[in-house]
Amino acid sequence: MVMTMNFKQLAELYKNELLGNVIPFWEKHSGDKEYGGFFTCLDREGKVYDTDKFVWLQGRQVWMFSTLFNNLENRDRWLEIAEHGAGFLEKYGRDENGNWYFSLTREGKPLIAAYNIFSDCFATMAFGQLSKAARNDRYAEIAVSTFKNIIARSDNPKGKYNKAVTGTRPLKSFSLPMTLCNLSLEIEKLLDKNLVNETIDRCIHEVMEVFYDRDFWLIRENVNPDGSFSDSFEGRLLNPGHAIEAMWFIIDLAERNQDQGLLKKAVDITLHTLDYSWDKQFDGIYYFLDIKGKPVQQLEWDQKLWWVHVEALITLLKGYYHTKNPACLEWFQKVHDYTWSHFPDQQYGEWFGYLNRRGEVLLPLKGGKWKGCFHVPRGLYQVWKILEKLNES
Amino acid sequence: MVMTMNFKQLAELYKNELLGNVIPFWEKHSGDKEYGGFFTCLDREGKVYDTDKFVWLQGRQVWMFSTLFNNLENRDRWLEIAEHGAGFLEKYGRDENGNWYFSLTREGKPLIAAYNIFSDCFATMAFGQLSKAARNDRYAEIAVSTFKNIIARSDNPKGKYNKAVTGTRPLKSFSLPMTLCNLSLEIEKLLDKNLVNETIDRCIHEVMEVFYDRDFWLIRENVNPDGSFSDSFEGRLLNPGHAIEAMWFIIDLAERNQDQGLLKKAVDITLHTLDYSWDKQFDGIYYFLDIKGKPVQQLEWDQKLWWVHVEALITLLKGYYHTKNPACLEWFQKVHDYTWSHFPDQQYGEWFGYLNRRGEVLLPLKGGKWKGCFHVPRGLYQVWKILEKLNES
Repeated sequence: MVMTMNFKQLAELYKNELLGNVIPFWEKHSGDKEYGGFFTCLDREGKVYDTDKFVWLQGRQVWMFSTLFNNLENRDRWLEIAEHGAGFLEKYGRDENGNWYFSLTREGKPLIAAYNIFSDCFATMAFGQLSKAARNDRYAEIAVSTFKNIIARSDNPKGKYNKAVTGTRPLKSFSLPMTLCNLSLEIEKLLDKNLVNETIDRCIHEVMEVFYDRDFWLIRENVNPDGSFSDSFEGRLLNPGHAIEAMWFIIDLAERNQDQGLLKKAVDITLHTLDYSWDKQFDGIYYFLDIKGKPVQQLEWDQKLWWVHVEALITLLKGYYHTKNPACLEWFQKVHDYTWSHFPDQQYGEWFGYLNRRGEVLLPLKGGKWKGCFHVPRGLYQVWKILEKLNES
Repeated sequence: MVMTMNFKQLAELYKNELLGNVIPFWEKHSGDKEYGGFFTCLDREGKVYDTDKFVWLQGRQVWMFSTLFNNLENRDRWLEIAEHGAGFLEKYGRDENGNWYFSLTREGKPLIAAYNIFSDCFATMAFGQLSKAARNDRYAEIAVSTFKNIIARSDNPKGKYNKAVTGTRPLKSFSLPMTLCNLSLEIEKLLDKNLVNETIDRCIHEVMEVFYDRDFWLIRENVNPDGSFSDSFEGRLLNPGHAIEAMWFIIDLAERNQDQGLLKKAVDITLHTLDYSWDKQFDGIYYFLDIKGKPVQQLEWDQKLWWVHVEALITLLKGYYHTKNPACLEWFQKVHDYTWSHFPDQQYGEWFGYLNRRGEVLLPLKGGKWKGCFHVPRGLYQVWKILEKLNES
C-alpha cells in the first residue's frame, strides 16, 4: 500500500484542498470590513457566531496570507488580506509596555491582558513574513522588537499573572523553547546572526536534551529548572501533538545545520510518540496523556484535534523526505487516512477541529478561540510541497 | 412508576451507600498520617496517585466529617478526621493577608496562590461546622474572619490575577452569589443577624433576578454589571449543574424565610433547566451549553459529571418535598436511574466522577483536583434525610 503511494496525485489533493477549499473559506468569511482584523469564530457554514478577536489567531492569519504571498504566488488579494489584519494588530494589539494582548473586542478594545507570550510569538511571525511581502521596514521593526521582548520575558512569560508561588515548584514549560525553534528560523533574516545562532542552539538543547525524557523516549510538557522529572500533574503531562509538531521544527533546524544525528533523533522521537499516543481502539492521536499512565487533569484528554493530526502529517513526511525511513511513510499513510476521513467537512467546506474519541464531531465550528486560519492551510501547504519534492526526487 | 416509589426503601439505599461505601472509602484512603491533611488524588482502587493538596477539597472534607458528626452521630473518629484536616489547613492554608491558597504541596508549602475565592468559601464552611463539632471558638473565628474577607473581596475576587482588562467588559459571575446563598446559612449562627439577612437578601436577588434570564427561563453564568445580557462566550454560557445546585440553596432560604413564591420559582427554574440540558440521545445532564445554541469554548461540554447529577437529585427531592409538584418526582426518578446505573463503582467502591457523553467512564479516578469527599456524600446524606421525611409525612 505504502510502496505504491502516488506522490504526484497526493500533491494535487493537498494543493486543491488548500487553494480550492480552505483558503477561499477564510477569504470569504473572516474579514471584518467595518472594524478591521479577522473574525475567527465561524460556525459550520462560515457564519460569524462571536466577534471577539484573539491575537494568536489574528497574527496567525496575517502570517498565513503573507507566507502564501511570499512562497507561492504574489497575489495582491493575499497581501491585502495580510495587511488588513496587520493594520488592526498594529493599531490595537499592544499594551503600554509593547506586550501583545490576548484578546480584543471587535472594535479593538483590549479584553484580556498580555498574560500569554504566544500572542507575541504569533505577532512576530506575522510581522516578520509581512515585512518581506510588503517590503516594509516598519513591519520588520515590530517583528524584531517583539522577538527581543519575548527573549527578555522568557524566564517568567506570564509575569504578574503567574499564579505559582515563587520557589515551591518552579517548573519550566516546553511551549516556549519549542515555539522559538520555529520563530528564530522564521525571522532569521531580520536578526543579528549571533542572536539567531544562540537562540537556535539553546532551543535545540532544551527540546532535545532537557524536555526529552531519555527513559520514556517522550517529550515532557514541564520539567524542573534543572531538567529533572517533576512527579506532579504538570510534570507528568504529555501533549503528543506538541511533541510531534516540535519535531518538524527540529527537522528544519537539522536541515539548516546539516545535522544528520539530530534529524534521526527527531524522527525516532516522532515515531515513538505516535506509537505511544495512537488510540488503538478508535484510531487517532490522543490530545493529552500522563507519562506514568495516571489520570490527567484535562477532561478533553481523549479527544482528536485537527492540529495534532495535521502537524503529524508534516513531521512524518519531512522525516521521510530526509531519512527515507519507511516507518515514516507507513505512519504518514495511517494519519493521512484518519485525517482525510474525519476532519474535512464535505458539505460546507474547511475542516472540523474537535472530534470526540470515536472521531465524531464534538463541536461543528470552523473557527473559534483557538482554531483559525493556520494549522490546516499551513499543513496542506507544507505537505503539498514535500510531496512535490518527493515526486521529483 | 413514580407513584409507587418506596421512600423507605430508597432512604435505605442512600443511607447504606453513604455509611457503607462512600464515607469508609475516604476514611480508609485519604488521610495523610505523615504530613497531615488529606490526599484527594485517589485512583479507582483508592491508591494515592498524586500528593498535592487542594484547599477546596481539604476544606470540603473537613466540612463533610464535621457535618456528619453534628447532624448524624457524634462519632469520635469523624471529629478526629475533621480536626486532622483542619490542623493542616490552619497551619499552612493562608497567605500573609489571610487569603486561602489554592493548593499546597504534600508537606504544606504553598503551590498556587490565593487567586480563587472559593478556597476561602470552603474554608469558611469547614471551620464553621467544625467549630460546632469541636466546640472551639478558634475555629469559629477563622470561619468568621474568612467570611468577612470574602465579602470584602467580592467585587474583584481574583484580585491581581484577574486577566480581564479593566472597563472593557466587566462581567460578574454567578458562582459567588450562588455560593454565598449556601454559606450564609451554613454559618448563620456565628454571624451578626443583620449581616446574615443583608447577605441573604442580596444573594437571593442576584440569583433569582439578576442572573436568572426571564426570556430564556435559564440562569446565566456571567452578566453585565447592570444584569443585562452580554453576547459573548462568557455571557452566553450555561452551567446547568450550577444553576440546579443553586436552586436547592434557594429552596433552603425560601424555607427559612417561609417564602412560597420563591420556592415555586426555584422549582420552575430547576425543571426548565433540566428540560433544556438533558441529553435526549444518551441521557444525562450536559456540563456546559450556550444559551443561543452557539459552540461553547469548553471542550468537555457534553460530558456527564457526578456532581451535576447528585446536585440535581437534592434539588428535585427538596422541590418535591416542599411543593408536591409531581414533575419533581418524575425527574427525580429519571436522574436517580441515570445516576445509580452510571456513577457507582461496583468493583472498588465510591463513585466515578467523569463520564463521556455516552455515559462511559472517561477517567477512572475517585478523586483528583476537583473531586473529593463532598458532592457524593453530601448528596447521599441530603437525599436520605428528605426521603425519611417523605416516608414519615
